[in-house]
Amino acid sequence: MRIKKTTACNLLLCLLSLPVMAQVKPADYVNPIIGTNGMGHTFPGACVPHGIVQLSPDTDTIPHNVNGVYQPRAYEYCAGYQYKDSTIVGFSHTHLSGTGHSDLGDILIMPFTGPLQTNPGTASDPDSGYRSRFSHNTEVARPGYYEVMLSDDAIKVQLTTTERVGIHKYTYPRGASQKIIVDLNHAIYNYDGKVLWANLRVENDTLLTGYRITNGWSRVNYTYFAISFSKSIKKYGYEDKQKIAYNGFWRRFKVNENFPEIGGRKVVSYFEFDDSDNKPLEIKVALSGVSTLGALKNLEAEASGRTFDELTIQAAEKWNKELSVIEAHGDKDKLTMLYTSLYHTLINPSVYADVDGQYRGVDQAVHQTKDFMNYTVFSVWDTYRALHPLFNIINRERNTDMVKSMIAHSQQSVHKALPVWSHMGNENWCMIGYHSVSVLSDAIAKGLPVDKDQSLKAMISSSSIPYYDHTDEYMKLGYVSFDQSASAASITLEYAYDDWTIYKLAQSMGNQKVADEYKKRALSYRNLFDKELGFARPRYADGTWKPAFSLLNTHGEGFIEGNSWNYSFYVPHDVNGLIEMMGGDSRFINKLDSLFSMHLPDEFFAHTEDVTREGLLGTYVHGNEPSHHIPYLYMWSSKPWKTQYWIREIMNRMYRNNIDGLCGNDDCGQMSAWYVLSAMGFYPVCPGTDQYVIGAPYLPYMKLTLENGKELVIKADKVSDKNRYVKSVKLNGKPYHKAFIGQQDIMNGGELTFEMSSQPNKQRIFKGENRPYSLSE
Amino acid sequence: MRIKKTTACNLLLCLLSLPVMAQVKPADYVNPIIGTNGMGHTFPGACVPHGIVQLSPDTDTIPHNVNGVYQPRAYEYCAGYQYKDSTIVGFSHTHLSGTGHSDLGDILIMPFTGPLQTNPGTASDPDSGYRSRFSHNTEVARPGYYEVMLSDDAIKVQLTTTERVGIHKYTYPRGASQKIIVDLNHAIYNYDGKVLWANLRVENDTLLTGYRITNGWSRVNYTYFAISFSKSIKKYGYEDKQKIAYNGFWRRFKVNENFPEIGGRKVVSYFEFDDSDNKPLEIKVALSGVSTLGALKNLEAEASGRTFDELTIQAAEKWNKELSVIEAHGDKDKLTMLYTSLYHTLINPSVYADVDGQYRGVDQAVHQTKDFMNYTVFSVWDTYRALHPLFNIINRERNTDMVKSMIAHSQQSVHKALPVWSHMGNENWCMIGYHSVSVLSDAIAKGLPVDKDQSLKAMISSSSIPYYDHTDEYMKLGYVSFDQSASAASITLEYAYDDWTIYKLAQSMGNQKVADEYKKRALSYRNLFDKELGFARPRYADGTWKPAFSLLNTHGEGFIEGNSWNYSFYVPHDVNGLIEMMGGDSRFINKLDSLFSMHLPDEFFAHTEDVTREGLLGTYVHGNEPSHHIPYLYMWSSKPWKTQYWIREIMNRMYRNNIDGLCGNDDCGQMSAWYVLSAMGFYPVCPGTDQYVIGAPYLPYMKLTLENGKELVIKADKVSDKNRYVKSVKLNGKPYHKAFIGQQDIMNGGELTFEMSSQPNKQRIFKGENRPYSLSE
Repeated sequence: MRIKKTTACNLLLCLLSLPVMAQVKPADYVNPIIGTNGMGHTFPGACVPHGIVQLSPDTDTIPHNVNGVYQPRAYEYCAGYQYKDSTIVGFSHTHLSGTGHSDLGDILIMPFTGPLQTNPGTASDPDSGYRSRFSHNTEVARPGYYEVMLSDDAIKVQLTTTERVGIHKYTYPRGASQKIIVDLNHAIYNYDGKVLWANLRVENDTLLTGYRITNGWSRVNYTYFAISFSKSIKKYGYEDKQKIAYNGFWRRFKVNENFPEIGGRKVVSYFEFDDSDNKPLEIKVALSGVSTLGALKNLEAEASGRTFDELTIQAAEKWNKELSVIEAHGDKDKLTMLYTSLYHTLINPSVYADVDGQYRGVDQAVHQTKDFMNYTVFSVWDTYRALHPLFNIINRERNTDMVKSMIAHSQQSVHKALPVWSHMGNENWCMIGYHSVSVLSDAIAKGLPVDKDQSLKAMISSSSIPYYDHTDEYMKLGYVSFDQSASAASITLEYAYDDWTIYKLAQSMGNQKVADEYKKRALSYRNLFDKELGFARPRYADGTWKPAFSLLNTHGEGFIEGNSWNYSFYVPHDVNGLIEMMGGDSRFINKLDSLFSMHLPDEFFAHTEDVTREGLLGTYVHGNEPSHHIPYLYMWSSKPWKTQYWIREIMNRMYRNNIDGLCGNDDCGQMSAWYVLSAMGFYPVCPGTDQYVIGAPYLPYMKLTLENGKELVIKADKVSDKNRYVKSVKLNGKPYHKAFIGQQDIMNGGELTFEMSSQPNKQRIFKGENRPYSLSE
Repeated sequence: MRIKKTTACNLLLCLLSLPVMAQVKPADYVNPIIGTNGMGHTFPGACVPHGIVQLSPDTDTIPHNVNGVYQPRAYEYCAGYQYKDSTIVGFSHTHLSGTGHSDLGDILIMPFTGPLQTNPGTASDPDSGYRSRFSHNTEVARPGYYEVMLSDDAIKVQLTTTERVGIHKYTYPRGASQKIIVDLNHAIYNYDGKVLWANLRVENDTLLTGYRITNGWSRVNYTYFAISFSKSIKKYGYEDKQKIAYNGFWRRFKVNENFPEIGGRKVVSYFEFDDSDNKPLEIKVALSGVSTLGALKNLEAEASGRTFDELTIQAAEKWNKELSVIEAHGDKDKLTMLYTSLYHTLINPSVYADVDGQYRGVDQAVHQTKDFMNYTVFSVWDTYRALHPLFNIINRERNTDMVKSMIAHSQQSVHKALPVWSHMGNENWCMIGYHSVSVLSDAIAKGLPVDKDQSLKAMISSSSIPYYDHTDEYMKLGYVSFDQSASAASITLEYAYDDWTIYKLAQSMGNQKVADEYKKRALSYRNLFDKELGFARPRYADGTWKPAFSLLNTHGEGFIEGNSWNYSFYVPHDVNGLIEMMGGDSRFINKLDSLFSMHLPDEFFAHTEDVTREGLLGTYVHGNEPSHHIPYLYMWSSKPWKTQYWIREIMNRMYRNNIDGLCGNDDCGQMSAWYVLSAMGFYPVCPGTDQYVIGAPYLPYMKLTLENGKELVIKADKVSDKNRYVKSVKLNGKPYHKAFIGQQDIMNGGELTFEMSSQPNKQRIFKGENRPYSLSE
């Protein structure tokens, strides 16, 4: 990874003279390459905040051979890119950021100069296809911009985007012919048959339109496009790698050359351009989920008449504006980590509507937005925890639209369900719970202008679908039985929290009937707590506990993405109740201590596929989300300073400024949102309350510039790994004795001052109203 | 085929007392079963005039095993039904009428009472699937209505339609459970993978919505639907016979039972209904090419709140209204043949727009009609000859919309091409020529209110596409060479005629430049006429003739659907020029005589697949279209009475009131339009002129009631097989000496009187202005 000279220079200045110099812009700190190797699953390419076009190199996405059957790569290539790879297949326009399941990679373009090859070839033999070798030394990645030199044909590639348009600039060697592949068969999570249909029209010598429909993780994904070129097409053609039924075309035409209408299942096309001027080729690719006309409108509105360089500057400006919500002091690595985390929180969800407001809903029909912008990519099981709560501080307008998008989704859903895991007008039902109810409840608790009646209606219907993941049994027994589901215990615990958020909203609206019903459901977590064992434990429908139960294993023990050690703490809405169930304060603390510091036997790692020893603190797994709130739970105990200790430990160990610097999937910004919030010094343990539980700031100075014009300054002079403990807190100069800060205090702006110390302040214990919220007081 | 009692009774009356009794309505004569066996390729099911929903039983459409590979049945099951079959698979909603290539068969429903079977089973073992045996004795087919008893489960099926909605009424045995299959995998021209995607939503207990996308003859066909039931669904489910990539549903839900969202590639679903009332089940299936919302609108506008019986009456009324354009006297068989032919001309093209005017164009985008109704199913190579000219007499408003639909098609086409063979928003490029130019030119010549500038523009662009079927070479050499195409000679001859229609329009508009260019092109037929041989003959690009040339064979000799004997007469726009090339009047007559009367050797039939001895007169093939005008060519000669002889011979021999009564594919009404026009006594040999060449009426009395309110009565007292010759003609009482009647004379109404005779009137020869049009005068 080569740092661009100007940036390197600024960074040098910043190292020499803290605080940050004015000329250094926040985007200069962002290192999009963080997390692009291993399990971060982030992509290095170009995008603008919450833009649907995420234009990025794909290094390998072809199916892998599993016992002779080619299976899609569901996990490793979620972002299409792994830093360890040494070849690039091409540049596609849609990606997921940090997910644990893959999809997309739509509309791949690859420049070349030599003989035509219509297959991508293999990583082990790049010359067997159109892919090219490259060196990371030639890569430049910064917000809204990506650059690389394709070494096979010596073509310099530069990429930038708007929200709905990807812009490519290809500089070919002088005198070389200028050609590109447009591979409509390429995909991430590719398999034989992913593309249901692809269509391409050569409208004139500088304009293509078309679409493809895919069946992937998104079950039916419609991607329409309009592609304009800066110079004339001289010649073109295509190959369809799968015979279609009616071949009338073939008999009558030479359809594989200069025939302006191309359709099929596995269509790879090529275009050759007028190279007489030796100028670079610029390509603008507009996407739409609605129609080619929508794509043309997007192209016209966002990119027509502007050069690559102008659009690159515009993309950088957009990022600097959004990233400027935080101003911070700190060393380079910490600022890089902070701004890269903030950057990662501003990628998904993405706008999913044309400039005229038309979009494809989860009913697969086209809708017209009226009073909101429609968003997609809702990884809600991850993002309800910290990403949407973070947005309620720094990104409120967008989060309002996201919530409205969720409500519209529920209205279009045949199940009348809010999103579980949805993207591109599809519900993929990944993971568990119905956590959108938390996002809605939290948004309303934090004052977003969202219709409460519509919200409550959608929340009730989402939580009452009898056939949805054993909700029927849950409503009947008070838990999901291990007879029914291998994730029964996780599901039950998460339903209980989700139901509490519905209780909370209903109560605030004075709807006592609903509040009472859901309060009862919110206590369901108790049904799966084995008091004798002191842990959450799955049970059968007849009430008996699962025998031969392992607290450490995840798989086969009733949990998902977390073992009983972690999930037993999953009662964010009733920590007091949990403490009581666990036998009181000291037992609770002991258990937390053990969680973070136990030594796991080596054989444990032999049986896990996505957890390594360095990804763990004891058996606390930060790479998976169910534990994200746990380090903050000490704040309910008599030893709150332990939160301060472990938060910093996690930030230091689990987030690093390098290619594999993320200890797990970034999960559409959830991992990063945890970091940004924890760096501020507080975290939303229980979204749906208006409280952020106070940990300790990571940096000596941070200023939040809020959408209402107010500024919140967070000071922590002399904070360091040594001085990680909070001695005292002041809000606007007055001593502050609560374990949490409320939404309103944040929105009012002012100054939150932490006095830091190398020793815990064992007097700073929270009681009564100063303790954070619990359902059981 | 059981004739319904009331109809049988009326027919009896009509046999006893000619002329037709007032109570017999024209629809009563129609026998939709004509042509349903063998090569007619008509369907027996229900539809309304030009409706897109053509709801009909499919008897067998599953792919057939060709050397171990299952291939779609492209030919035999074009209409989904062959009378010879003894099982019905189910009732699907879209069909083609009389085509020579198959497609559609969308959204199949089949009622059953017994155990669930999700595959159709085979004809040889009906019990192996959901299909049922049936007897033709239980079939009732009349315009807008079809009835059959499914014998396996004793279910009575009744079908009717509106333009966009199919209505089913299923009467189950008392006490039996009421179940249906909805097979979204069923198709005509089916093959493994035809369905690209199918989707189904159970909106509530009486409403389904969904769609499917297929790749067949129509390369990408979008069929959206809304299905309402007269009673509540008790239970439902589905089976997807092809695994899809992401199976998140499967892990989380019991998706195959009562899960309201069903999607996949090979989806077969079933529904069970509340049978407690023992009432029949009524089902309304609305289609749309646009969206499920469009289908719902169509359902609401056309069928909501009306019973099956009401809608059946409405369908019959629509047919009687349209068929009443002709009132005729004659015996039962002849009237049946006349009205069935007229019925067959009023099926395709079909309306292809929702009730709100939205439709899917050939660019696959959704458009909004402004000033016309959009039509689809343009089998133009067939229908430019007689169907559209017939419409210019009896169906002018619709033909205006059809022409406007064709112009819209050309504007949406990336080639700027008018339809060649298009259906359901797709161009399938079947057959040769660009004959829509003829349809446009003819419409304008006959006074339809069509924009001339738009028309000429579309005609010029359609005929100037260099890559279209060797148009480039044709424009350069004056013919398509046999080097380039196996159909080179047919293509050249047809281009020449098509170009003449462009010349004709341009000239009428005073555009001399275009007229001159296309007049030259119109004479291109001469380039392929071997004067020495006296026949059209393919030649190579270097000018040499194809050696070892057979006049009788079709395949491999430069022709398509006709041999040189037939195609040599294909100069409809310059018959005088043709006569001259053939060596003058007597040689021309001799050649025509030979064509109709030669004896073909038996080995000829060994090498043809769709021509039988009974389908021929000499080597004249009426089952294929290129010869349709030939019997009228005697009218340019000194023996015009031979036209009268052969016309009647063809009508008697090639059209019969029985299941295999059509001697070839009805071709979307072209075969039938030939019959209807010839029965009137005139035929449009050269569409683009305003002339109909006079043959001889088939019936003693016919009255046309035109859209302008005028009536044209055609009288031919004592006409019979014996009295087949025209002695004299009067128009409005005045002797009429021309060989043709003009459009305006027809539109003015009045009386056209033929004096018939058993002997030719050898004095009635046409010269000068009385001869029909020729480019060379």
